[in-house]
Amino acid sequence: MAQIRHALNTKRADDFAAWYQEVISAAEMAEESGVRGCMVIKPWGYGIWERMQRLLDDRIKATGHDNCYFPLFIPLSNFAREAEHVDGFAKEMAVVTHHRLIAGPEGGLIPDPEAKLEEPLVVRPTSETIIGDAMARWVQSWRDLPLKLNQWANVVRWEMRTRMFLRTSEFLWQEGHTAHADEAEAKEHTLRMLEVYRAFADEDLSLAVIAGEKPENERFPGAVETWSIEAMMQDGKALQAGTSHYLGTNFAQASGIQYQDREGSQTYAHTTSWGVSTRMVGGVIMTHGDDDGLRLPPRIAPQQVIILPMLREDDGDAKLIEYCEGLRATLASQHVLSEPLRVLLDTRPGKAAQKRWDWVRKGAPVIVEVGGRDMENGVVSMLRRDRLWDEATGKPAFQTPTREVAGQTIPDVLADMQASLLTQATERREANMTRGVTDFAQVEAHFGGDAKYPGWIEVQWSKPTGAALDKIVEQLKAHKLTMRNVPIGSAPADGACIFTGEKAVERVLLAKAY
Amino acid sequence: MAQIRHALNTKRADDFAAWYQEVISAAEMAEESGVRGCMVIKPWGYGIWERMQRLLDDRIKATGHDNCYFPLFIPLSNFAREAEHVDGFAKEMAVVTHHRLIAGPEGGLIPDPEAKLEEPLVVRPTSETIIGDAMARWVQSWRDLPLKLNQWANVVRWEMRTRMFLRTSEFLWQEGHTAHADEAEAKEHTLRMLEVYRAFADEDLSLAVIAGEKPENERFPGAVETWSIEAMMQDGKALQAGTSHYLGTNFAQASGIQYQDREGSQTYAHTTSWGVSTRMVGGVIMTHGDDDGLRLPPRIAPQQVIILPMLREDDGDAKLIEYCEGLRATLASQHVLSEPLRVLLDTRPGKAAQKRWDWVRKGAPVIVEVGGRDMENGVVSMLRRDRLWDEATGKPAFQTPTREVAGQTIPDVLADMQASLLTQATERREANMTRGVTDFAQVEAHFGGDAKYPGWIEVQWSKPTGAALDKIVEQLKAHKLTMRNVPIGSAPADGACIFTGEKAVERVLLAKAY
Repeated sequence: MAQIRHALNTKRADDFAAWYQEVISAAEMAEESGVRGCMVIKPWGYGIWERMQRLLDDRIKATGHDNCYFPLFIPLSNFAREAEHVDGFAKEMAVVTHHRLIAGPEGGLIPDPEAKLEEPLVVRPTSETIIGDAMARWVQSWRDLPLKLNQWANVVRWEMRTRMFLRTSEFLWQEGHTAHADEAEAKEHTLRMLEVYRAFADEDLSLAVIAGEKPENERFPGAVETWSIEAMMQDGKALQAGTSHYLGTNFAQASGIQYQDREGSQTYAHTTSWGVSTRMVGGVIMTHGDDDGLRLPPRIAPQQVIILPMLREDDGDAKLIEYCEGLRATLASQHVLSEPLRVLLDTRPGKAAQKRWDWVRKGAPVIVEVGGRDMENGVVSMLRRDRLWDEATGKPAFQTPTREVAGQTIPDVLADMQASLLTQATERREANMTRGVTDFAQVEAHFGGDAKYPGWIEVQWSKPTGAALDKIVEQLKAHKLTMRNVPIGSAPADGACIFTGEKAVERVLLAKAY
Repeated sequence: MAQIRHALNTKRADDFAAWYQEVISAAEMAEESGVRGCMVIKPWGYGIWERMQRLLDDRIKATGHDNCYFPLFIPLSNFAREAEHVDGFAKEMAVVTHHRLIAGPEGGLIPDPEAKLEEPLVVRPTSETIIGDAMARWVQSWRDLPLKLNQWANVVRWEMRTRMFLRTSEFLWQEGHTAHADEAEAKEHTLRMLEVYRAFADEDLSLAVIAGEKPENERFPGAVETWSIEAMMQDGKALQAGTSHYLGTNFAQASGIQYQDREGSQTYAHTTSWGVSTRMVGGVIMTHGDDDGLRLPPRIAPQQVIILPMLREDDGDAKLIEYCEGLRATLASQHVLSEPLRVLLDTRPGKAAQKRWDWVRKGAPVIVEVGGRDMENGVVSMLRRDRLWDEATGKPAFQTPTREVAGQTIPDVLADMQASLLTQATERREANMTRGVTDFAQVEAHFGGDAKYPGWIEVQWSKPTGAALDKIVEQLKAHKLTMRNVPIGSAPADGACIFTGEKAVERVLLAKAY
């Protein structure tokens, strides 16, 4: 097998964290902004997020939610209402205290001491309390329920250690908030939205997630139940990629969301909330990227096909561009995965080979190069991002279909790649999933051993609460492990709890996590 | 002529400001949030904004811009760099000074004195300075130009007196930012984006705007040229609906946006910025609303056709809904104004007549009611929002086409309504535009007279600067007037300046304004 010269400096196997940063930089997805904890999302990274937004927004609207918009600022007093919520969030938040700047005594600008707010405002870390205020106004009768809202917004949680897309002080997300007449309906809705996230993650992002319930210690502050989708990254760590919470009547009581039921009594509504953020972009990188850069599932690729004419800056260029334009028009008129195919004819100045590697690093699914000789022969040179190398020669695995055949087959190639990336992710997840472990010493050996990227372990446990649970959390923490979730549809427990030795009641996933 | 009982309590002619608030409330577009200066945008209002976003975003992308995202927070020191920009903006802004809350000595939460930021952060009022920082990193060579960026974001400008959609402390907008090699290209781009705004306002929102250059005193802080589109509201006031700025090298010098030109010299780029905000929603209300509520141009209506079966809560309902579903499916399969037609079958409980008036107030373009007898006769009862009343009878002007004819003709009705609203806005603007005024006393008489909604006046002026301009601004201010813009394509000046008596050089529009 020939040596392959990959397009990145860092290999996943050598330093996964450094590789991740290099992909973000090499694919021109984002960069540090100079403002503490905040990143700049560059066009290619934002284009991926826009695709995610469009696809998830369609799914959220299809389940009967309306988009709306609530204030960025939340009065301090709102946070004091729901005790657990305060404990969870009222720590690292951005606080607005002044509404004016003036020239300072030593030059520069300072907050005007005369313009201090009577009540400081918090930049929203999440919007349960402010949306709860609105719901309390809007919900009067059982006829007003269910109330199903969604918001696309920026939120801020002050973070000391940040990592682009995965953990930034400001991030972008959608947050859904619903109110229901009773517990059964609210719980059903919590799971419906979890399923929306699972389908989005698997079908659109090819992530191969596992949906399940979080153990008590991992619940959202103020929630009665928290469910998540968990994705396995190529370093074996788990990424919580979306959460859906059943909030009981906790926030309804804090905000006063009451309705007159059919019998005429005032009753508290049961609420849910659920969110997915720009963190998903990080999950896509760490699931699909390879040593040549990003690989994008076609559904979320801002451009699915790049056509690169090999321009020579002479009279022949016009004819070559015309030839490429023919292919572009054929492709643009087709649909793939139920949407118009997105194709870019890249005629910017610069060497075609250099541009090719830029697009490889960006993860464009299909790259089509066309030189003068290709044109004479009526063919194109086509590269699939997920089958980049000819391992025998160590060279890019170009195929050379005729232009007509390329125009006809590329939609199928894209659909195949979408499915293939999901298959790869699923197979890798299962290959790195260890089941049947019954002794905690095996867990310790597994995660303490030589395996650089040890994956996940499924264990059985007795689901204790209180001090017994705290003890388990500490025991796991000593090995940098956390319980990810109790997968929906996993086999019933049939043994002893790996932590307490008592009869197990369910299976839970253990992993290192982002 | 019969008496018409309109669907709102307040008439435009009686109290335009109160009417505006009533439309927003009755159409369920937005409401006060309880957070100072911030509103809650409710689903119908946000749906209109989403339509605007989609249409304008397509236009912005078609002119070669990429979307991206920059931090919400801007370090204080960024504002100190561009002197005029500071003067214009560094006053009423939200300032973040702390990053943590703790329990206060008297209960509740307070900003943690231990978590004071070394450098306060400003919540962006606009992003020239932070995007300038990024441009300085990204622009190195003439090959990197032009750089054409756009961002959809929330911004905050602390406002003492707020009015929903028109002036709120937090608002939503897009802000475009570009860098160019030279003045000519940057100026051309400033005008290209002004034309994008004009086309968007006229073709999508039916606003009938006037595009032109703002006089010096109305320029954006730090701009060399500011251009605007101005729309005439039904009370004759002007609404600045979008602006496009040529910034010269002012921000390039402040942020260090320099490139190596073809000759190898380091050269400052010329930048532009341009923005359109949720204020546009207010402009649509005040341009198209009537005494029955909102009227929406079909292009921006979240739903274009509402089908209301007159349900009786008995066994006949299923058959009626099936009949309506047939019409819904026919309409949903059609395109209108180059997009799939948006149709809603409203089967919520409640009386059809009450639901009809809810949709009238919301401005849905076409309402189709279907009762049992309509079904028997194979017809529907159709109401056009822009021809609501039969003036002879004082009753709603229902038409009763067959279901088949309705399915075929409604797309044409919607296209006609889109054009008709623009025609109405254009005719009203021209009817309320006074030209040929040569004496300032006439201006005073016009705006000081009995006319409740006096419209705009076009005058000729000598375009003085400095103290002479200040004097004019003061003179106008005494009558609550401002100069709106110097319309593109207006006739050349051919007389004396109405302010100075000197030879006029151009024509400028005077109006009261929002």
